[in-house]
Order: sequence, then structure tokens, then C-alpha cells
Amino acid sequence: MEFTIQQIAVMLGGEVQGEGAQTINMLAKIQDAKKGQIAFLSNPKYEQYLYTTRASAVLVKKDFQPKKEFTTTLLLVDDPYSSFTVLLEEYHKLISFQKTGIEQPSFVGENFAVGKNIYRGAFSYIGNNVKVGDNVKIYPHVFVGDDVVIGDNTILHPNVKLYAGTKIGNNCEIHSGTVIGSDGFGFAPQDDGSYKTIPQLGNVVIEDNVAIGANTVIDCATLLGDSTIIRQGVKLDNLIQIAHNVEIGKNTVIAAQAGISGSTKVGENCMLAGQVGIAGHLVITNNTSIGAQAGIGKSVKEEGQKILGSPAFEIKEYFRAYAVFKRLPNLHDRLRELEKKVYQTEAMMEKPLNNGNAER
Amino acid sequence: MEFTIQQIAVMLGGEVQGEGAQTINMLAKIQDAKKGQIAFLSNPKYEQYLYTTRASAVLVKKDFQPKKEFTTTLLLVDDPYSSFTVLLEEYHKLISFQKTGIEQPSFVGENFAVGKNIYRGAFSYIGNNVKVGDNVKIYPHVFVGDDVVIGDNTILHPNVKLYAGTKIGNNCEIHSGTVIGSDGFGFAPQDDGSYKTIPQLGNVVIEDNVAIGANTVIDCATLLGDSTIIRQGVKLDNLIQIAHNVEIGKNTVIAAQAGISGSTKVGENCMLAGQVGIAGHLVITNNTSIGAQAGIGKSVKEEGQKILGSPAFEIKEYFRAYAVFKRLPNLHDRLRELEKKVYQTEAMMEKPLNNGNAER
Amino acid sequence: MEFTIQQIAVMLGGEVQGEGAQTINMLAKIQDAKKGQIAFLSNPKYEQYLYTTRASAVLVKKDFQPKKEFTTTLLLVDDPYSSFTVLLEEYHKLISFQKTGIEQPSFVGENFAVGKNIYRGAFSYIGNNVKVGDNVKIYPHVFVGDDVVIGDNTILHPNVKLYAGTKIGNNCEIHSGTVIGSDGFGFAPQDDGSYKTIPQLGNVVIEDNVAIGANTVIDCATLLGDSTIIRQGVKLDNLIQIAHNVEIGKNTVIAAQAGISGSTKVGENCMLAGQVGIAGHLVITNNTSIGAQAGIGKSVKEEGQKILGSPAFEIKEYFRAYAVFKRLPNLHDRLRELEKKVYQTEAMMEKPLNNGNAER
Repeated sequence: MEFTIQQIAVMLGGEVQGEGAQTINMLAKIQDAKKGQIAFLSNPKYEQYLYTTRASAVLVKKDFQPKKEFTTTLLLVDDPYSSFTVLLEEYHKLISFQKTGIEQPSFVGENFAVGKNIYRGAFSYIGNNVKVGDNVKIYPHVFVGDDVVIGDNTILHPNVKLYAGTKIGNNCEIHSGTVIGSDGFGFAPQDDGSYKTIPQLGNVVIEDNVAIGANTVIDCATLLGDSTIIRQGVKLDNLIQIAHNVEIGKNTVIAAQAGISGSTKVGENCMLAGQVGIAGHLVITNNTSIGAQAGIGKSVKEEGQKILGSPAFEIKEYFRAYAVFKRLPNLHDRLRELEKKVYQTEAMMEKPLNNGNAER
Repeated sequence: MEFTIQQIAVMLGGEVQGEGAQTINMLAKIQDAKKGQIAFLSNPKYEQYLYTTRASAVLVKKDFQPKKEFTTTLLLVDDPYSSFTVLLEEYHKLISFQKTGIEQPSFVGENFAVGKNIYRGAFSYIGNNVKVGDNVKIYPHVFVGDDVVIGDNTILHPNVKLYAGTKIGNNCEIHSGTVIGSDGFGFAPQDDGSYKTIPQLGNVVIEDNVAIGANTVIDCATLLGDSTIIRQGVKLDNLIQIAHNVEIGKNTVIAAQAGISGSTKVGENCMLAGQVGIAGHLVITNNTSIGAQAGIGKSVKEEGQKILGSPAFEIKEYFRAYAVFKRLPNLHDRLRELEKKVYQTEAMMEKPLNNGNAER
Repeated sequence: MEFTIQQIAVMLGGEVQGEGAQTINMLAKIQDAKKGQIAFLSNPKYEQYLYTTRASAVLVKKDFQPKKEFTTTLLLVDDPYSSFTVLLEEYHKLISFQKTGIEQPSFVGENFAVGKNIYRGAFSYIGNNVKVGDNVKIYPHVFVGDDVVIGDNTILHPNVKLYAGTKIGNNCEIHSGTVIGSDGFGFAPQDDGSYKTIPQLGNVVIEDNVAIGANTVIDCATLLGDSTIIRQGVKLDNLIQIAHNVEIGKNTVIAAQAGISGSTKVGENCMLAGQVGIAGHLVITNNTSIGAQAGIGKSVKEEGQKILGSPAFEIKEYFRAYAVFKRLPNLHDRLRELEKKVYQTEAMMEKPLNNGNAER
């Protein structure tokens, strides 16, 4: 990417003070910036860097009054930080969607229906009867199985694997090594102690605006016609396990290495911290917040709870219980001490009674 | 696949009541089924759907007596559900083994000994001196290192990685992204605080009928001639860690995200739930059941135990202890209350004693 | 590899007793060794095998005095075990670095700057402006994004994925399926309950002598110019999660399935056991040892601690507390028993006081 400062000013609705014709090709922090880069000044404690920065342009507040000389060009905006964020996002989009065209060798099966402006990297594999929307980016080593459908503007990073029948919506981003649609873990015990594989014939459906990290696994549903479902806006981190027939509700966020067992339904707007484990066949209601490493063994029915522990319960209660847990040896000592005292007392009490002491 | 109802009747030992010449290409639930599909009726509460279903055929019990008119063809069998399961399995086999032939580009090293009826997907890589049995399916992006041996009827899903020297038996299925034979985690501490890599020269041996999920890792053994061993019938889920020199006994089942450290031997017919962790150099005896997120720090010697906790102990005892743990703040309050009372009592008791009680 | 016993003797500074012209192509244990293999005898209890071994050569101590006849050639050295270790390492290096040349098809972008003696496997992908040192091994299905820099003697096993901008030092080894540079998990909550992706524009820097296991994930830093950093000598096992902006200090060792959240700094020479989880924005000081499955919720400031639990505290205290935890039902019973006694006593005490009973 390369824009003039003037073009950026138009994009942000700002005003140029200096040489607007210079070109910008990168964003940077004000203290690190070099020629050709744009930085921002929001927090006054960084103002010192303005006077020494080598950035070609710096975003500053409209009412900014410099105290010393400087060489950079100013770009005056209402809110330098949020303007910088806008530039970051634009830059990210440019980066993410800059690749187009088809690299060779790549493999395409029969009946490939494909939109405009897509990228298909070298060594990517497209099975039969695949349907892909506009602006889709399929990086190298991606595997797209038969009958897969992918919406518009979706990015599949290198080595994403989509098993046959997977459906993915619009504006999704899936990172490297993630596997979608692998067989659910279903085995029927036999009389001889061995297990028979239960065929896994369903698929995975991922709705719009879903982000999935690297090396995560989402298994397909067991029955033909059934789906493991990731609802719109869900954000999954790396190395997560989503078992067969799970459903994750809208805008739920799940951190790395969490695992959700078969047929569990997680509600909307939930937050699961790292390494959480949820047993199978449960219902976790909306707005549930589950702390790191918690283990969930039964359904959560009341909305808005924060829980922790394995098995998990209300988070403040967990911390209170844990505070006492840490002092258990002390408690135990005190209990023993008390026992001694009480039995002594008892013994003393009993003696007089037994002895029928007169003076009482 | 496409069979006539009459052909399916022969396969199941059933009887056709209606048009046996119609073709079936899919299985479905009775309420969802369409033309060309076969469904089953087992639970009487679904009987209503028989009279409206668009399925071309429905499996029903031999003695089934319809109460209304219907348009579908009946296929009378002894047990509709188990007949449907048989069809599901056949369907699954057809799906799993339907791919044959060689897609290009693919890579094959020297001395490739290969059986009949195999599938090698595009971008699959076969090293030198590899031996592969009949009906093996090697999906795209699979890496098979030098000197690997693979038995008959084994399926390697896209992107499975087999390091050099790996041995895999018959009828195994390994899902995408799983790595077999990577280096064990062995490092010798040096005087300067750094670590020297201990060469990992063994391999991994996987016996017959083993199923392995996606993105799981099984490290090779440390010494030349030694093996990390997965015995016959073992079922491993997704994202599992199996360290160097581990041995997993026959028909043991391990759920997602569990991890087993180096040189530990897990017995036969064990069940490890999700996110279990087992330390190194332990022996877990046969028929041990380990609950979710449990941490195992010492060997389990008595067969048939169920354990939980970190470190783990008998599961019912764990739950009893945990029930008290949740109430620890209350226990602590009660202990303090008791202390107050007992010291008060003691003070009261002591006062008279100290005060020169007459009878002394 | 194939060396004569005489050549090996020169390499180890040892002396041949027997036929030095025989060739050796493999290392083995003395009890398993075959013709063409070399073994060692260090522990006297294995001496019996010397007299029956089929090894072509056996490393023995300089002063070794055989008690019976034998057919193998002896190679006399100061320390047979450490000499064997030297051979193991040499063998490992030979194995690791034996592959050279370029297999086809493989993909290389523009401006590829590459050293001597490298291996690029079939289906490997090199983006634009990539710089690779000498003796680098890039196995099949490796993805190297744009602007990546890789030092000398580094090995990337099959299917390693390096996102654009990743920097890797010298003498590193990264195992299959590991993803480096994927987006950090950053999402800004919006008023409607949805999340907006925060662009992740930094990179990952891996210094020299770093080993990384299979299917591990290291996310890039959030800001342009920032890096997630793995310092020299760090050893990471399989299936580990390293979030954005994390820094792992020199010679720190992390076992499988551990996870470190965003912006946390782990010091030098730390040891993290399996399945450990560390929250974000913490500082773990040097020489900290964290036990398996521990959860770290706050910074560790004092060096040299060993901690355990979730949240973690001093390991011995944890075990003491846990020992009491296991007996909590018993403690609870005893507390109840005491309460009964004390209230009884109190009742007894109060009665006389209240009643002022003299006659007792």
C-alpha cells in the first residue's frame, strides 16, 4: 500500500499541516517511526517524541499546540488514537486481501463454482462440487473437501482442512492447521472389550463473521442431516476442541485450549477462558462466564453467572473456598488443638461428676 | 452409492412391500427424508411421520400394522433400528473407501511397495522405502516419511504426518493434522543453564484397528530400536499428547486434550476423559477410569478404579471432599466460633481454678 | 551412513581390538544388535551379552578384561556410554541433515535469498522476499510466508507454517504442524454484543537454538513493530499455546499442552510442566518452576519458587493443603462432633449458671 498524506487526510476527515504530497507506506509507533511511516500522538507523555520523530506524518488533535520545532508533517484529527485504529484496520484489510489470482500447482475437482477476486495458493486442494463466494482467500496447502460451501470475504490461512460437506459463511477467518469436520469421537463398546466405530455422517456449519484460531478442531455431527454449529460472530482461539453436535451461540468467545464435549449447547455472549473443559450433553445458558481451567459437569441455567473450579461454581465463592483451602493445614492443626482442649475439658468435667465432688 | 430397495432388502434379509425397483442413494430421518432416501420407524411416537414421509422407503418391523394410508415403500425387517445402523455403516464404508486412484501432482520416493486399490491424493508425499497395503487411502497433503509401513484398509485423512520409520497396522483411521513420530521432548541440562538435545531415534508403532482424531501428536521413542506403542483397538480423540516411549494398552479410549508424559504405560480397557494429564514413568493398570481434568502423579496399581482430582484419588471420595471444599468458608466460620466458645469456656474454667478455689 | 570401525575409533579417540575394516551402519543395544551395528558395554550386568552379541563392534572400557570367548570386535575407549552418546548425536545429525537438494513440485516467490546446502521438499511453499541461511532443511508441505528470515542449520519439519514476517534464528528445530505467527486473539466488544477484530500486525521472533514440538501455536504480536519473542535456547513441547506479545526467556523449558496468555513475560531458566495455564499480562521471574496443570493468576516475583495449584502457590504448601483436602469429609465430621460436644458442654455449663444449682 502507498498513499499520500493528503489522501489519508481525506480518508480520516482531517487537515494536513505540512507536506501533504509525501507518501506513506506503513504505520508505526511515534518513537520508532521512520521516513514513509505515519504515527500518532495521543498521550501527552509521548509529546517529546514529536520533536525528534522521523515519521513522515503524525496524527495529532485538532487543537494541538507544539512547544518546539519539528520536521514531520502533522495530520490534525478529532481523535488521533481512533484515527490510527482506522488506519490499522484499513492496513490489515489491505494486507489480508491483497493476494489474488491462482498459483500453480493447485488442484480443483469437478463442478467448482467460484466468485470474483479470489486467491488460490499453490498446493491448495479443492474437491468436487465446491462453491466459493467472492473475495475468498484460499492460502497454500488448504484442503477443501467435496461439497463444501464457503461464503464471501472468507479467509482460509495455510493448511486449513475442511472435510466434505462443511458450510462456512461470509467474512470468516480461519487460521492455519485448523481442522473442520473431522469424525466425532463415537465408539460402541462390544462384548469382547473392543469398540466399534459409530459412523459420523453429519457436517459442520459455521455462520458469518466467525474467527477461528490455529490448530483448533471442530468435529462433524454424528447423524446425516445434523450439524455441529458455530453461530455468527463467534470467536474461537487456538487449539480448541469442539466435539460432535456441539452448538456455540452467537458472539460467544472461547479462549485457547478449551474443550467442549459432544452435544453440549453453549449459549450466546458467553466467555470461556483458557483450558476450560465442558462435559457432554449440557446446556450453558447465555451470558455465562467461565474462568480459566474450570471444569463444567452440569448445565448452567441461570444467566449471567461467573463460575470457576472443577467442578465449577460461583467464582467469588470459589475464591473464598480456595482461600481457606490454602490454610487447610492450619485449620487442621486448630481443629486438633480444639479437640484436645475439648476432650480435656470433657475429661475434667466428667471427673468431678464421676467423683461426685462435694464442694460444688 | 445407489441401490434398489430390493437390493437393500436382500442385504438386510428383509421383505419389500411396495415398489422394490426404486433406487435409494441416501439415508435420512423419517421426518426429513426426501425422494431417493431410506428412513426407519422404530419408536411408535414417530409413526405419524410414516403417513406423510417423502422417503422412497421406510424400514419397519415385520409385524407393523399401518393405521392410515401412505405412499412410501415398506421394507419389513426384524429390528428397523439395527438394520438402519447396518446401512449407516455400509454407507460410511462406501464413503470412506470410494476414493481410488492417484491424483497429480503427488510425490513418491524410491522403492515404493504398494497394494491394490489405493487412493493417493494430490500433494501427498511418499518417502523412500515405504510399504503400503491394500485399500489404503492417503488423502491430499499427507506426508509419509522414509521406511514407513502401513497395513491394509487404513485411512490417512488430509495432512496426516508420519515421520520416518512409523509402523501402522490394518484398519486404522487417522484424522487430519495428526503428527506421528515427532521427536520426544528430551534435553540434557548443561552447566551454563542451556540444554542439549537428546537425539530421539526410536519410532512409533500403531497396531490394528486404532482410530486417532485430528491434531493429535504421538512422539517417537528415544532409543534406536525402541517404540512408542499404541496397541490394537485403541481410540484416541483430538489434540491428545502422547510422549516418547509411552505404551497405550489394547482397547483403551482417550478423550480430547488428554496428555500422557514420557515412558508411562497405560493398561488395557482404560478410559481417560478429556484434559486428563498423566506424569511420566508411571504404570496405569488395566480397567482404570480417569475423570476429566484429573492429574495423575503416581502409578495406579489396583484394577477397576475410578479416579478424579489433581492429584487424583477415588472419584466418590473426591466428590465428597469437594462438597466440603465448597463449604470451607462456612467450616472456617464454625471453627472460629467453636474456638471462641472453647476458649471462653476454658477461661471460665480456669478462672475459678486460678482464683484459689477453696477446695484446692 | 556407513563408517569402518577404524574410522569410528579415530572419531572417538579409541583403539580397535579385532577387525577394524568392517563397516558399521547403525547403533543398537548390545542385546539386540546385529551384524553391521555397534553397541556399548558400560554396566557390568550386561557383560553376558558381549559373549553372544552379533554386533560387529562393541564399545568397552580401556581396561576391560573379557572372561570368555567372543566374536565381535572391541573398540576400547575411556567411557563407553559417553562415546556411544557421541555416536548417537553424530548419527542424529547425519539423519537430520542428510537430505539436500530440491524436490519438485515446490513453490518459490520473488526475491528468494538462500544459503548453501539446503533441502526444500516437494510441496513446500516459499513466499516473496524470504531469506534462508545455510544448511536449512525445509521439509515437504512447509509454508514460509512473505518476508520471513531463517538462520543457518535450522530444520523445519513437514507442514510447519510460518506466517509473513516471522524471524527464526540459527540451529532451531521446529516439528510438524506447528504454526508460528497466527493472529493474536484480540477482539473489541461492540455495543450490540458482537466483537470487532483488532488487527494483529506484529510478528514472531525466535532466537537461536530453540526447539519447538509438533502442533504448537505461537501468535504474532498485536502492534506493527512489536514481536512475540522466544529467546535463545528455549525448548517448547507439543500442543503449546503462546499468545500474542508473550516473551519466553532464555533456556526456559515448557512441557506439552501448556498455555500462556497474551503479553505475559516468562523469565529465564523456568520450567513449566504439562497443561500449565498462565493468565495474561503477568511477569514470571527467572528460575520459576510450575507444576503440572497449575493455573497462574498473578505475577511471580521471587526467584526460584516451585508452585502448584489453580491458582498456584508454593508446591509443598499445596501438597500439605491437598492432603487435608482429601480428608475434608473426616474433618467435617470431627468438627460436627466437636460442635455437638461443645454445645452440650455449654448447655451443661449454662444450666448450673442459670439455675445456680447448688445441689450438684
